[in-house]
Amino acid sequence: MSIANTPSPPYYAVIFSSVRTEQDNGYGAMADRMLALASQQKGFLGIESAREAVGITVSYWASEEAIKRWKQNAEHLEAQRLGHKAWYSTFKVRVAKVERDYGI
Amino acid sequence: MSIANTPSPPYYAVIFSSVRTEQDNGYGAMADRMLALASQQKGFLGIESAREAVGITVSYWASEEAIKRWKQNAEHLEAQRLGHKAWYSTFKVRVAKVERDYGI
Repeated sequence: MSIANTPSPPYYAVIFSSVRTEQDNGYGAMADRMLALASQQKGFLGIESAREAVGITVSYWASEEAIKRWKQNAEHLEAQRLGHKAWYSTFKVRVAKVERDYGI
Repeated sequence: MSIANTPSPPYYAVIFSSVRTEQDNGYGAMADRMLALASQQKGFLGIESAREAVGITVSYWASEEAIKRWKQNAEHLEAQRLGHKAWYSTFKVRVAKVERDYGI
């Protein structure tokens, strides 16, 4: 994983911040599957992820519609259900519109 | 560090994604100092950070003006200069307006 090669703004970012529980219970496999599945969605622009005490996954999307479709994806709904029930002791999702960017 | 306790949207997120070079050269101390200094700024709302292959730091701000002031802070300008020159092999900054959030 490296820095997402996103287009010029505007586009959207979904910032998913979480703290894991102790139980794995299929978490690793599901995380890999969601990464692969997200990247196949229409409007997906890229993703970045890291975890220490807190896990941060930022996915980038072309539109709010693309974000809503991904949130309603059947396999993703099941992952969300298990995440809420077993894998995350707490989490927060923030949907944001990227207005400008710069870097090297 | 845990999940930032941000107010109800709208507010701003600065997503700083980076890949480190091999050299430390004061990086750890500067990162700690910038964390402490950022959190004293007017309009600062919280921060989350994690690093694996990629480092992601998301800081949250009340306004674009607060973000601009922080970017121009003298100590922070020096940190940015050293970051560009020595600590990061690549980085990207994205400024985004958080429109909605949810979680547990």
